[in-house]
Amino acid sequence: MTLTHQALFETLREFDLLKTVIRKTPIFEGSRLENSAEHSWHLALAAMLFLGKSDEKLDELKIIKMALIHDIVEIYAGDTFVYDIQGQKDQEEREKKAAAKLFLKEEIPELKNWLEIWEEFEAAESPEAVFLKGLDRLLPILSNTFNDGFSWKKYGIEKDRVLKRNAIIEKSHPELWQDVQKLLDKNVREGKLTE
Amino acid sequence: MTLTHQALFETLREFDLLKTVIRKTPIFEGSRLENSAEHSWHLALAAMLFLGKSDEKLDELKIIKMALIHDIVEIYAGDTFVYDIQGQKDQEEREKKAAAKLFLKEEIPELKNWLEIWEEFEAAESPEAVFLKGLDRLLPILSNTFNDGFSWKKYGIEKDRVLKRNAIIEKSHPELWQDVQKLLDKNVREGKLTE
Repeated sequence: MTLTHQALFETLREFDLLKTVIRKTPIFEGSRLENSAEHSWHLALAAMLFLGKSDEKLDELKIIKMALIHDIVEIYAGDTFVYDIQGQKDQEEREKKAAAKLFLKEEIPELKNWLEIWEEFEAAESPEAVFLKGLDRLLPILSNTFNDGFSWKKYGIEKDRVLKRNAIIEKSHPELWQDVQKLLDKNVREGKLTE
Repeated sequence: MTLTHQALFETLREFDLLKTVIRKTPIFEGSRLENSAEHSWHLALAAMLFLGKSDEKLDELKIIKMALIHDIVEIYAGDTFVYDIQGQKDQEEREKKAAAKLFLKEEIPELKNWLEIWEEFEAAESPEAVFLKGLDRLLPILSNTFNDGFSWKKYGIEKDRVLKRNAIIEKSHPELWQDVQKLLDKNVREGKLTE
């Protein structure tokens, strides 16, 4: 067997571990918590759907790759809850170390491009990164909407914090943000989220 | 809320159900069976990795979208095991019905393009479809390699059937096929697969 295929097989095995990283939100039909691999798939689909609605001229291929790659660092850095202020203190350092371990491989130099795409996502400056960050924040809001506010209730998150922590949606998807705010109000009225 | 966003939210909810479709092979570290959503994510990564090794001029964006979409019909048609000859008899009809239900939506006309990509994958004629079909067959072989032949043993699959049912790998990835055959021989020697 060529070294190349062996290295690809081992890398597929390593990246497969993202399926074992468990997030704080359930899958939409509610039977269990979601893992970061299937979430990444779902985010890529969301990007494809919302790109159909976007007026901006965005690099579709880059956005989809970014969705697929954006959480791979969690294999070694773990998932950090968006409302976990303590965990976020060393999140950047943990994730940078993980990224180097995962994407800087002598035997697969092409992975350096994955590192660059991940760094672009983290920087949250390019139109593509901002576009995707917004959708990455939308999905847990939908999960909570469809699951009676599961993680909002479990971790005591109020509407104000949801608004503050997800304001990046407004930056790239202003119309969506209007609808998300209406959705949050409806969730408050239905007792899924506290005021 | 605009009709459009509501329709997108509902479609994301519907597609999310792919996370509940369970396959016959375990995730690579072996703790549980894999679902079709996380498998689709993994296949897209595999495509990105192998495209770096390909000499052919292939449409990368189409291949990645194809990977993300290729199993969505299973939401209504279920997963059909590659060695299940009985289940394959009405598989095509079941999947076509599911595809129409999932991808022909008045409120999201862009999904028609997803239907076309899925149909191209099923036809297995275009270079992109053949490329991806080969990798879709590689992944369960790797799962069995890393999991002591879990589904080969459970369903009594011998080496000859693995070779026959996965020969499409040879069509698009002849060098990989050489290495897969070596891997199968090694699996036989290690008692993971019967001759």
